[in-house]
Amino acid sequence: MTQREITALNVGDGEAVSPETQKYFDLCEEKLGMVPNVLKAYAFDDKKLRAFTDMYNDLMLADSALTKLEREMIAVAVSSINRCFYCLTAHGAAVRELSGDPVLGELMVMNYRVADLSDRQRAMLDFAVKLTEKPAEILEVDRQALRDAGFTDRDIWDIASVAAFFNMTNRVAAATDMRPNHEYHSMAR
Amino acid sequence: MTQREITALNVGDGEAVSPETQKYFDLCEEKLGMVPNVLKAYAFDDKKLRAFTDMYNDLMLADSALTKLEREMIAVAVSSINRCFYCLTAHGAAVRELSGDPVLGELMVMNYRVADLSDRQRAMLDFAVKLTEKPAEILEVDRQALRDAGFTDRDIWDIASVAAFFNMTNRVAAATDMRPNHEYHSMAR
Amino acid sequence: MTQREITALNVGDGEAVSPETQKYFDLCEEKLGMVPNVLKAYAFDDKKLRAFTDMYNDLMLADSALTKLEREMIAVAVSSINRCFYCLTAHGAAVRELSGDPVLGELMVMNYRVADLSDRQRAMLDFAVKLTEKPAEILEVDRQALRDAGFTDRDIWDIASVAAFFNMTNRVAAATDMRPNHEYHSMAR
Amino acid sequence: MTQREITALNVGDGEAVSPETQKYFDLCEEKLGMVPNVLKAYAFDDKKLRAFTDMYNDLMLADSALTKLEREMIAVAVSSINRCFYCLTAHGAAVRELSGDPVLGELMVMNYRVADLSDRQRAMLDFAVKLTEKPAEILEVDRQALRDAGFTDRDIWDIASVAAFFNMTNRVAAATDMRPNHEYHSMAR
Amino acid sequence: MTQREITALNVGDGEAVSPETQKYFDLCEEKLGMVPNVLKAYAFDDKKLRAFTDMYNDLMLADSALTKLEREMIAVAVSSINRCFYCLTAHGAAVRELSGDPVLGELMVMNYRVADLSDRQRAMLDFAVKLTEKPAEILEVDRQALRDAGFTDRDIWDIASVAAFFNMTNRVAAATDMRPNHEYHSMAR
Amino acid sequence: MTQREITALNVGDGEAVSPETQKYFDLCEEKLGMVPNVLKAYAFDDKKLRAFTDMYNDLMLADSALTKLEREMIAVAVSSINRCFYCLTAHGAAVRELSGDPVLGELMVMNYRVADLSDRQRAMLDFAVKLTEKPAEILEVDRQALRDAGFTDRDIWDIASVAAFFNMTNRVAAATDMRPNHEYHSMAR
Repeated sequence: MTQREITALNVGDGEAVSPETQKYFDLCEEKLGMVPNVLKAYAFDDKKLRAFTDMYNDLMLADSALTKLEREMIAVAVSSINRCFYCLTAHGAAVRELSGDPVLGELMVMNYRVADLSDRQRAMLDFAVKLTEKPAEILEVDRQALRDAGFTDRDIWDIASVAAFFNMTNRVAAATDMRPNHEYHSMAR
Repeated sequence: MTQREITALNVGDGEAVSPETQKYFDLCEEKLGMVPNVLKAYAFDDKKLRAFTDMYNDLMLADSALTKLEREMIAVAVSSINRCFYCLTAHGAAVRELSGDPVLGELMVMNYRVADLSDRQRAMLDFAVKLTEKPAEILEVDRQALRDAGFTDRDIWDIASVAAFFNMTNRVAAATDMRPNHEYHSMAR
Repeated sequence: MTQREITALNVGDGEAVSPETQKYFDLCEEKLGMVPNVLKAYAFDDKKLRAFTDMYNDLMLADSALTKLEREMIAVAVSSINRCFYCLTAHGAAVRELSGDPVLGELMVMNYRVADLSDRQRAMLDFAVKLTEKPAEILEVDRQALRDAGFTDRDIWDIASVAAFFNMTNRVAAATDMRPNHEYHSMAR
Repeated sequence: MTQREITALNVGDGEAVSPETQKYFDLCEEKLGMVPNVLKAYAFDDKKLRAFTDMYNDLMLADSALTKLEREMIAVAVSSINRCFYCLTAHGAAVRELSGDPVLGELMVMNYRVADLSDRQRAMLDFAVKLTEKPAEILEVDRQALRDAGFTDRDIWDIASVAAFFNMTNRVAAATDMRPNHEYHSMAR
Repeated sequence: MTQREITALNVGDGEAVSPETQKYFDLCEEKLGMVPNVLKAYAFDDKKLRAFTDMYNDLMLADSALTKLEREMIAVAVSSINRCFYCLTAHGAAVRELSGDPVLGELMVMNYRVADLSDRQRAMLDFAVKLTEKPAEILEVDRQALRDAGFTDRDIWDIASVAAFFNMTNRVAAATDMRPNHEYHSMAR
Repeated sequence: MTQREITALNVGDGEAVSPETQKYFDLCEEKLGMVPNVLKAYAFDDKKLRAFTDMYNDLMLADSALTKLEREMIAVAVSSINRCFYCLTAHGAAVRELSGDPVLGELMVMNYRVADLSDRQRAMLDFAVKLTEKPAEILEVDRQALRDAGFTDRDIWDIASVAAFFNMTNRVAAATDMRPNHEYHSMAR
């Protein structure tokens, strides 16, 4: 797939990816069975790709008191507010897969508020969604609500960072009309 | 300044920064006359700091057909929508400095729409602000408006990436109540 | 399933449905393989159930220049604005099934604007969504846009009626926390 | 009055109404002194007219613990949010007439929040208006507020159904530019 | 009527109005048949009352290329956006009276967009309402639309000033819960 | 500076101001070192200028339990919501000057919510901003919150009047594209 097939932009099209990037893509194929289109979209510039993957991998895969599922739930709840087709598709699949609960994935996509969540996870998503919709109105009372739900200040950093990150990627995807890999749609249904 | 003085969170407080980070901070002091507080906020974790600075430096300082001033104008116009005290202060100062026009900095903070801009720069900011406010409604017509104003598809990528990045940092700053260095306020007035 | 399992309300719970309604439910089982939960939710009162099904069947199944798929697309695009878990689930499945295109169903749920639609269908959904979000701002120019896309005045009546109907059912479902049949989620993926 | 005089659409114009419908209209003339224009608008299709009147009559006139005045108050408060000229006119008149209080009718049209209402009626309208404006944010706490104000679960069903119904009719009226009978304006002033 | 009966505030209550103000009120009684409650609300302070009436009388009664009816139409369209019970009641009556068209008054209260207006008056109200809802987005194109509809720059000043003034009074009335004189409701129906 | 240089309108341009107005302008020069552009904008009509200055001077300079700084803080917080370049510039300077705290001025411009305010001042600004954004939703509970923060009913009148006044002037400035005197930008930094 060329850039033009993944996004509406004609950026670096036709050029071969660098050997370093090819190696990374081979690893993706091996571990995920595909190269996520977002990576191909960034592949026209090794530095941009690396900056993106470094941040993504740290936020979504590195150690944190938030489970990987919780981080994916934040990703989808935020992407639902922004109605991001790419992120809802890719991360909705991740929620279905990590939770083993296809309905939970749908609820995150459609309306997290009506999901049957623990107080902890509801507080987490309420914060992430308020941060998405009304960042200027986040006050100490919102941070305290997270602490009251059992989160540490470091956890708040992580919740905020993941929610903020998807507010970025949702907009890169929207601006470029980025298309998700077709495989995601049928995954873990 | 400790983390607690920079943000409302108590994260990694009291720990010394790593030698690598200290070296980076020394470089900041030398080149900027200060260490921007956002870097101190991220300093509790070298990987997070590095991921942030790699992305920041690529977007704001690396080669692009967008001038550095234009990238800062996007940063401030986006931060104005999100009412981010940290980013408006730090990047408002950058607009004043890079343009040599203190009023332009104020206009970006207050209401970019009433600034006296070239068609190119107005198109750029209109796109960045729509992407901020209504990402789900960005369509081909919006990309075409940028092309009509003289931007290439690669430029669109850069405009989108900068606007998206500040939609992330605005929210990290809001979530943590991040405070800008006091020096910014009087800079280039 | 009792009312309490389908909605958050305890209405007419425990009472057996009337013979007439039971007959209708048996027919549903036979033709659809299930009784849609919305019907069970209304079953506590035969008159209300009948009023609902008469209107639903006329709008969604009777003769119209809009195809059944188009009517379902309107249903899902409207329900996406209102974030209605019940209707997105049930009618998202219908879009997948009637179109044979699982991705189209997802696009209607997530963001109809980025779907690859004909001008006719885009005009239809633009009208339905504006009518949902800003009914007070519908003007002759909006009706004319439908005529320009090839719709007759009678078609406009049908588009408006379907969009309006789901603005009703979305709110009945939201107010009562109505839960969709589990079967819908895996249908036609 | 032909369809074209009642709405902006040319639907079934010029055709005589069916004998069954004519009989219904005669009854309206006899009991109300007029045929409400909404009925004339639907009269081009007997099935649609009957589905509409069956649902309307059940919701607004059948037995319910909500008084007819309360149901009309919901109708007007909802229509005020959607700024529906037809429904505000017709149901504003109904509130004036049923309450014998012309100012109450005006308050429902203009801003129900500043009316001097009982706690019960305020809770009822707060729910109806939130359901109108933010259906995705209705949660158990909102239903509980109604129970705390003395409403049963069946009453909640009725409040929700009336509010939802006018979210439908407001949009049919807006989409078709439906005009109310002139008589309503001076009624019960 | 004391202040407490007119507003929710207890300001200057019980004190007699000054002789100068009493004279003005006598004049109101003579010419209007009543003292508008807004004047009584301001009467606790002669300077505030005089500042208010000077501005009001200049804007609404002095020479202008806008007719008095047009100025009242702006008043009501603006007050409809802000849902101001006092101003909708008092100035809705004025539109009915000055136009001799009770339905026009209702349309301004309910939804000016569906009124059958001249291009000139529609442009005037579109500007006034955009200025009310989105003042930050008023651009040269909006002023030009007024010029294209036949307005001079001085007329634009007057349209803007009247719309802006009611954005003030709507908020004084809302903040104080100001109640209109009962007489307005039945006037010119 | 002519009207055309101060606003986008060509109103009364070229005419000399009246002797009375010239005297007033001379006084401004003497006391403020400049004639604020808003006064020049109104100078084409002595009555309009006088009505404006009478109201302004009473609200912002006359006796009140609100300090002049507090009134300026309201002015800027309101103007920030409306993104008014003129008022943010002129009154932002006033906050910096009266408080001797340049950062406080910036916080009012950028996001008053993250300022470190007393409970009294936060309550005052929360009311002023809600009155600006959602006047129709101001209820007794909002007035009571001000009383609980120590304000009298007369103080509430003053808070409301100042907030309402800037909702007017913001819109006059927006409608006319009014430009602030250049001197404000560097004042009290």
